[in-house]
Amino acid sequence: MNVHADPPVRGPVAPTADARAATSPLPLSEVRLTRGFWADRQRVNRTASLPIGSSRLRDAGNLENLRLAADPSGARGPDAYHGPVFMDSDVHKWLEAVCWEIAREPSAELREEIEVFSRALDDAQADDGYLNSYVQVVRGDDRYRDLVMGHEHYCLGHLLQAAVAAHRALGDCLLWQVGLRAADHLVKTFGPDAHPGIDGHPVVEMALVELYRETGEHPYLELARHFISTRGRSTLTGYGREPIYFSDRVPVATTTSPEGHAVRAVYLAAGASDVAAEDAAAAAELDDALETQWRSMVEQKQYLTGGLGSRWDGEAFGDPYELPPDVAYAETCASIGAVQWAWRRLLATGDVGYADGIERLLLNGFACGVSLSGEEFFYVNALQVRADAVPHDHRHPVNGRQGWFRVACCPPNVMRTLAQLGGYLASGTADTLVLHQYAAAELEHDGWRLHLDTDYPWDGEVTITVDEVPDDTERTLTMRVPAWCTDATVTDPDGQVVAAAPGYVSVRRGWHPGDAVRLALPMPVRLTPGHPRVDAVRGCLAVERGPLVYAVEQLDLPEGPHVDDLRLTSTDPSALVAEPRPDLLGGCVVVTGDVADGAGGTGRMVAVPYCLWANREVGPMRVWIPVAEPAS
Amino acid sequence: MNVHADPPVRGPVAPTADARAATSPLPLSEVRLTRGFWADRQRVNRTASLPIGSSRLRDAGNLENLRLAADPSGARGPDAYHGPVFMDSDVHKWLEAVCWEIAREPSAELREEIEVFSRALDDAQADDGYLNSYVQVVRGDDRYRDLVMGHEHYCLGHLLQAAVAAHRALGDCLLWQVGLRAADHLVKTFGPDAHPGIDGHPVVEMALVELYRETGEHPYLELARHFISTRGRSTLTGYGREPIYFSDRVPVATTTSPEGHAVRAVYLAAGASDVAAEDAAAAAELDDALETQWRSMVEQKQYLTGGLGSRWDGEAFGDPYELPPDVAYAETCASIGAVQWAWRRLLATGDVGYADGIERLLLNGFACGVSLSGEEFFYVNALQVRADAVPHDHRHPVNGRQGWFRVACCPPNVMRTLAQLGGYLASGTADTLVLHQYAAAELEHDGWRLHLDTDYPWDGEVTITVDEVPDDTERTLTMRVPAWCTDATVTDPDGQVVAAAPGYVSVRRGWHPGDAVRLALPMPVRLTPGHPRVDAVRGCLAVERGPLVYAVEQLDLPEGPHVDDLRLTSTDPSALVAEPRPDLLGGCVVVTGDVADGAGGTGRMVAVPYCLWANREVGPMRVWIPVAEPAS
Repeated sequence: MNVHADPPVRGPVAPTADARAATSPLPLSEVRLTRGFWADRQRVNRTASLPIGSSRLRDAGNLENLRLAADPSGARGPDAYHGPVFMDSDVHKWLEAVCWEIAREPSAELREEIEVFSRALDDAQADDGYLNSYVQVVRGDDRYRDLVMGHEHYCLGHLLQAAVAAHRALGDCLLWQVGLRAADHLVKTFGPDAHPGIDGHPVVEMALVELYRETGEHPYLELARHFISTRGRSTLTGYGREPIYFSDRVPVATTTSPEGHAVRAVYLAAGASDVAAEDAAAAAELDDALETQWRSMVEQKQYLTGGLGSRWDGEAFGDPYELPPDVAYAETCASIGAVQWAWRRLLATGDVGYADGIERLLLNGFACGVSLSGEEFFYVNALQVRADAVPHDHRHPVNGRQGWFRVACCPPNVMRTLAQLGGYLASGTADTLVLHQYAAAELEHDGWRLHLDTDYPWDGEVTITVDEVPDDTERTLTMRVPAWCTDATVTDPDGQVVAAAPGYVSVRRGWHPGDAVRLALPMPVRLTPGHPRVDAVRGCLAVERGPLVYAVEQLDLPEGPHVDDLRLTSTDPSALVAEPRPDLLGGCVVVTGDVADGAGGTGRMVAVPYCLWANREVGPMRVWIPVAEPAS
Repeated sequence: MNVHADPPVRGPVAPTADARAATSPLPLSEVRLTRGFWADRQRVNRTASLPIGSSRLRDAGNLENLRLAADPSGARGPDAYHGPVFMDSDVHKWLEAVCWEIAREPSAELREEIEVFSRALDDAQADDGYLNSYVQVVRGDDRYRDLVMGHEHYCLGHLLQAAVAAHRALGDCLLWQVGLRAADHLVKTFGPDAHPGIDGHPVVEMALVELYRETGEHPYLELARHFISTRGRSTLTGYGREPIYFSDRVPVATTTSPEGHAVRAVYLAAGASDVAAEDAAAAAELDDALETQWRSMVEQKQYLTGGLGSRWDGEAFGDPYELPPDVAYAETCASIGAVQWAWRRLLATGDVGYADGIERLLLNGFACGVSLSGEEFFYVNALQVRADAVPHDHRHPVNGRQGWFRVACCPPNVMRTLAQLGGYLASGTADTLVLHQYAAAELEHDGWRLHLDTDYPWDGEVTITVDEVPDDTERTLTMRVPAWCTDATVTDPDGQVVAAAPGYVSVRRGWHPGDAVRLALPMPVRLTPGHPRVDAVRGCLAVERGPLVYAVEQLDLPEGPHVDDLRLTSTDPSALVAEPRPDLLGGCVVVTGDVADGAGGTGRMVAVPYCLWANREVGPMRVWIPVAEPAS
């Protein structure tokens, strides 16, 4: 077993001892995914995705932008700079990913990469800590001229997140120093007694709070609180966008539902959650609003896959129940931001709904965002692709996953999330360990070491075995029973079996090495209807099994029917069969059943997990399947 | 009777004697709408909309832009210029509207307006005929630097259309001269032996052909043909858009379905139809493609309202059957462009499908675009608005119709279309008069004068009475039986009644003053299903009656159910009642029936014509109504 680090590497979110917290995250270094769905993806992330990121950041000009900025005699002006204004943020997110990955498992090669990019950042950084290669190359000293769309705080926010990851993974280092200087520039430049502006794209709020957590320096928290509390005055507008696009229509404290650009909205909510966790006065204003927003989102504005944002136009949340599967945007980054938001709220409240939400997001809308090879990425995660689709945009799913994007936010965001994924598995309080997500893993909490054995999400049997325990005082092992599971059972080390309703179920007792708890989460195939107000899926059902949403791809119906004409012939889920297919898509469970085409034709459907679609070829696909009209 | 003009004012489309034409348009001056639905709108267009246009063009800076361009010592640069780059086109479209309106009924006041704006155009026009106030004010002599998004041909195209209208309505005049100079500049500057570029936004093609028709000058036709034949080489790209957005992915001749930005696509198809009509070689290449594109559009990409473009992103056509009612874009200008396309093809082919298409477009998607007051306009014509909609954009229907837009293409487009509307009513060949659309009207064709008496679209009884006829040789009166009408009858002057199937029905005989033909088009309420592949309306029916699509507004359900929960309790249209309501919305026929809310509640629905929705207040609305699930 190899989960120790000294000191432990704290995870992406590490509330202070003073934070209002129902439960505390386990250090990243004390959770190790050992095999299975997520461990496989972490391995591919390390061996395929991270090196690709490094290449792309060179090929696309991100690194060159920094070198230009660093060179006083370098070219200047819009023709010298490569890519959109937020190119630096891709560097920062990728660096963050590499830092978490090194914390997971050391790598001299990756450390060398960090060194190269950190040096470029250090060289480019202005004496006062400012760093933004776009502004430095194109606009010189004319900083913060365009807070609405310039993404200067956004880029700096991602830099701070990378710096915190570096400090936690590596200790003091160049990237940490660059981050500290940038943060000090920010707190000197912005705030109630300085420049009053806010950035068009939130993320710096989360970053500043995490830096406060890492340093104990209150000015970082105060600036984050300032950004949160002054947002929502409808001052951000331009580029054909109204304040709603920038999450600036109404204050966070009075927002009842996330709206506008989905990534902006969920990043802002995550940042507000951080501020509320660390600042009691802010919590009084924000807590109810954050709870209301989350519920509204989950009930009215979230796809079954967890996907967020039904509108391409403005990459935005739609109106309540506006959830068309075909034109869904459901940006990979929005799923990631929602996981960040949910995790922060889960730590603060202990509400199992957030853990359920994280599961749905991670295993569907997020996991879909990267190919099994780790080499290609979805920006847009639609729930339906039709025949004869003519893509208007390289991001359209009909083009399949792409190696990179001109706006390349998603790929490095996937990478950092996979590298830090162990951090979302469990949390703890003094004598309690809480398991929120399931995967084969090794964990340590307060000297108590356990391992999880499971084939989740393919199978719902989870065995938690105690490997070491400091003493035999009573400790509590708490396990999430997912909302989708109505007949869970827990078998304690004495062989006592109890039924467990959705929520958290606990076993409290004295423990000894070898003690094992068996959590059984039966996974019958389900046929899920949409909310009656979701007009776009009326008359349809979706196949789910366990935490996974399923999709039907045309290539699995070689003899028809056409996916565009697919009809379920029965609404009884027991007519569908779950079938393990170790040979398919890296090993998965498919769901098969009889289907029709609405015109007399019949066939046999093979549905694959949504997150795995488009890993063979890209063709017509659908999640929501119409139910055949009764014969008349 | 007052339909004579000497010479007759030829309508917006006037093919040459050499054009391939199945039928020829009647001169605008020989068709007069006398009362009813469209005559009311023409009156409001004249008394309310056109004066508003004049004010807005002053308030929004369009006129000032021209004056700046005309003033050699005027301010220059982006800060001096008002509005987006295509501001001139709003002037041109409004001028075109005024010209057609003067042709309809003289007005000294409107002539004075033409004089003012024509003078401004004349003053701004460069010595070589170039005219574009944006370029002249912001870029000086740096013309055609940005054909992709600069809209220079687009603006000049609309200028030529206004100039043709001026020449037809007024004879030689300043606006005509400005147009001729601009056209001569274009033919000198562009073409196979000059600048090879094409404009990002089609319209100049239609304009050049019409100018050819008005002048007989072949270079205008040749340039139009050049623009059509060189489009589709995927050279137009930029501003985050791919060639498909600019109708430039594939050549017109090999395009099988309109795609990309809907207005661009239908304007291009209309221009290609013009070129094909006047050029036999072009026709050989284009005719089949234009037919295929139209059919594909009508069958796969058009809303029941005629609306075109299901995507806000790129204001674009969606994939086949991607027709969500809620997020429909269905720009008013796209309906107008499709009418222009259909009219040109109807003249060339005589295919009744185009006339049916024009009816659906005009009475639903187009008529919805302007308020009953004539003072406010819809840009976007969605088929559903939900509760709690938070608009991201001032164009969103939940904001109601607007007095003007920053991108103000739609209002003056509505104005010019209403002013020229008589031109779409009928056409003729030597001894045949063909009625394509129905309205109370007076017509003259080759000395044969008739009038139509009808309350269409509220009632399907149409009486056509001969007022004068030059002699008693046989002549044919041909009438369209709409595709929606399955039990039409025609009663000839002798009282003989014959059934008439959808299509054209003719009465051929010698005629005498007082002879009357009665066309009866019964209008039972219909409940129309969507195509099975239109996933977004599965399980729903739409109420139609005659040529009108109906909508349910929340304010007509004061005691519920909520429109978002509305359910039809019967799929039998005879359970619905059509009820004339002379008091409501300027006089209309509503459709009432029993409904439920899917949760035990019931109520009585009042559906109003879709084109009249949002004329009282703006709230939840829907066209497609879910059918209640059978009680289980």
